[in-house]
Amino acid sequence: VSLWDEINEQPAVLERLLRAEATNVARLAAAFRTRGVQYVVIAARGSSDNAARYAQYLWGARNRIQVALAAPSLFAPNGSSPSLDGALVVAISQSGESPDLVSVLVEARNQGRPTIAITNAPDSPVAATSDQILTLNAGDERAIPATKTYTAELLAVAMLSVEMAQDAEMRSSLTSLPDQVRLMLERSTRIQQLAAELRDIDRAAVLGRGFHLSTAFEWALKLQETAEVLALPFSTADFEHGPIAIVSPGFPVFAVVPPGPLSEDMERLLLRLREESERRLLLVTGSPGEIGHGDLEIKLPSGVPAWAAPIPAIVAGQLFCRHLAVAKGLDPDAPRHLRKVTRTR
Amino acid sequence: VSLWDEINEQPAVLERLLRAEATNVARLAAAFRTRGVQYVVIAARGSSDNAARYAQYLWGARNRIQVALAAPSLFAPNGSSPSLDGALVVAISQSGESPDLVSVLVEARNQGRPTIAITNAPDSPVAATSDQILTLNAGDERAIPATKTYTAELLAVAMLSVEMAQDAEMRSSLTSLPDQVRLMLERSTRIQQLAAELRDIDRAAVLGRGFHLSTAFEWALKLQETAEVLALPFSTADFEHGPIAIVSPGFPVFAVVPPGPLSEDMERLLLRLREESERRLLLVTGSPGEIGHGDLEIKLPSGVPAWAAPIPAIVAGQLFCRHLAVAKGLDPDAPRHLRKVTRTR
Repeated sequence: VSLWDEINEQPAVLERLLRAEATNVARLAAAFRTRGVQYVVIAARGSSDNAARYAQYLWGARNRIQVALAAPSLFAPNGSSPSLDGALVVAISQSGESPDLVSVLVEARNQGRPTIAITNAPDSPVAATSDQILTLNAGDERAIPATKTYTAELLAVAMLSVEMAQDAEMRSSLTSLPDQVRLMLERSTRIQQLAAELRDIDRAAVLGRGFHLSTAFEWALKLQETAEVLALPFSTADFEHGPIAIVSPGFPVFAVVPPGPLSEDMERLLLRLREESERRLLLVTGSPGEIGHGDLEIKLPSGVPAWAAPIPAIVAGQLFCRHLAVAKGLDPDAPRHLRKVTRTR
Repeated sequence: VSLWDEINEQPAVLERLLRAEATNVARLAAAFRTRGVQYVVIAARGSSDNAARYAQYLWGARNRIQVALAAPSLFAPNGSSPSLDGALVVAISQSGESPDLVSVLVEARNQGRPTIAITNAPDSPVAATSDQILTLNAGDERAIPATKTYTAELLAVAMLSVEMAQDAEMRSSLTSLPDQVRLMLERSTRIQQLAAELRDIDRAAVLGRGFHLSTAFEWALKLQETAEVLALPFSTADFEHGPIAIVSPGFPVFAVVPPGPLSEDMERLLLRLREESERRLLLVTGSPGEIGHGDLEIKLPSGVPAWAAPIPAIVAGQLFCRHLAVAKGLDPDAPRHLRKVTRTR
């Protein structure tokens, strides 16, 4: 099993998750509405931390829930951990093995707070330490860079949001996500051409905002892990006010543009970057606008609402990274220096 | 007034802040202990967001307060913002001009939640929208990269922590910080030599953890803004499990090492990075250990406790960036593309 296989398994993985966890998600959503729960603390590392960023925006925008991303090292055993009064604690972890996430859950339990684990490993220490479990059902992930477990984590976050909102339109968008990922996978050849065109790159800025801050961070992480690209993720809101100083002529910029009309700010920034990057601006876009005209562009499938777009958008990013690694002569299944399970203490 | 002047003003700025706000801080600290306040939401952008990271660790470790870093775009006017039940809202902003921070404060007020602004501009919109103000008293900051307002923000965060903890030892460390920054400024010539030695660099990974996650992020931002270095900040905990794949032979790595004995994990990682970066490992360190032996090293003044070290440590980073910019023939007072006030909407 390779990275390539796992990328292509994703429609089936998402379909299985939708089916397998529907009943459980309805039960879990009730925990968010329990008396005394005023906000949510999410503990996660690596790709799962990017799924947590998505939860911060989605649950905040659609369910009015304030999310805090935990600093797991504050919860070391024998320390004096932050008070979790008012919090529901959610751990997100592919392997469920990370001792520092277990520490957060143990502390939550000691403080009498409710906990949920979102994990691919229902027999793991993280799952064993949680009150309730949402299992990703993604099957073993063998490649070191996370792909199918990342999109499954995003879908789990979205399923909880839809269940809390009880919104029929959102529910129907959820059901169509596996097909939209299929459509994205069909664009693999086009994405391979773009990767071949950009095969000399060793650096990039990756921009996104709102729901797509998660996409920018995860795409940058995949570029680092699989294609040896020094990729810096930024919120477009922050980028203009400091980090844009790194953009020298020819500097590659990747941007994720949400579906729907572009904001004036975003259009102005993209036009400026197209100029300054000397047209090495790569867009993943659902926008019907003209900004992409003449640029390197990957279109999102139509009909994906903004809040659900991070799922097909990161699949575009995964395909790009895999094709770029191959075009650069690297082995995407054996990244430099890495091993699969994170055991940070 | 130039970046150089503002870096050197810092001991005087910190002394003035300690003196001017002592009484006010005692009053503000009480707001954190008000009935119904269960956690803190901080809204900030850019360098101030790095001060917020410091608050997350310091208030968490020393005052048992859970901190959530807000996503300001969720609080856009006319949207449905997250519920702030249980939250005290703190805005951190040098200029106090950012409309999206004002939106967070307006929403907090609408929801009947208490608010505090930490700002250098007591007549600004951010200050006008807050219940209470902690003024940085740093004087006008004219250089575009923030230096003296950043260390003043860290000190304001630390003053609040000490007041909440009512800890005599912490209080005495606070008082000695201006002198420790003076000692760091005296190391300017040594730092200038290191910058000259590294003047060909255009990329770097910047590592820190715990209290120094803020230092790593702020140092990386300064490297991007002033010295056109493509600098990626990482938590050392995350770095080994993915991003380390970007370290090719000769790749520069900067790491902030806290005072006190090194953890086994950290020592192992640094030895490995010294090897892999081909000795282009630059340490800012308060550790008495042997790891620095033969490396590029900036020593922190002795006697700084781990929680206070981010203030002298970032001064080392500021000096390094300024000297590096000059060594590269850049003008550190006029970074490419930038203007001072952030007006993100």
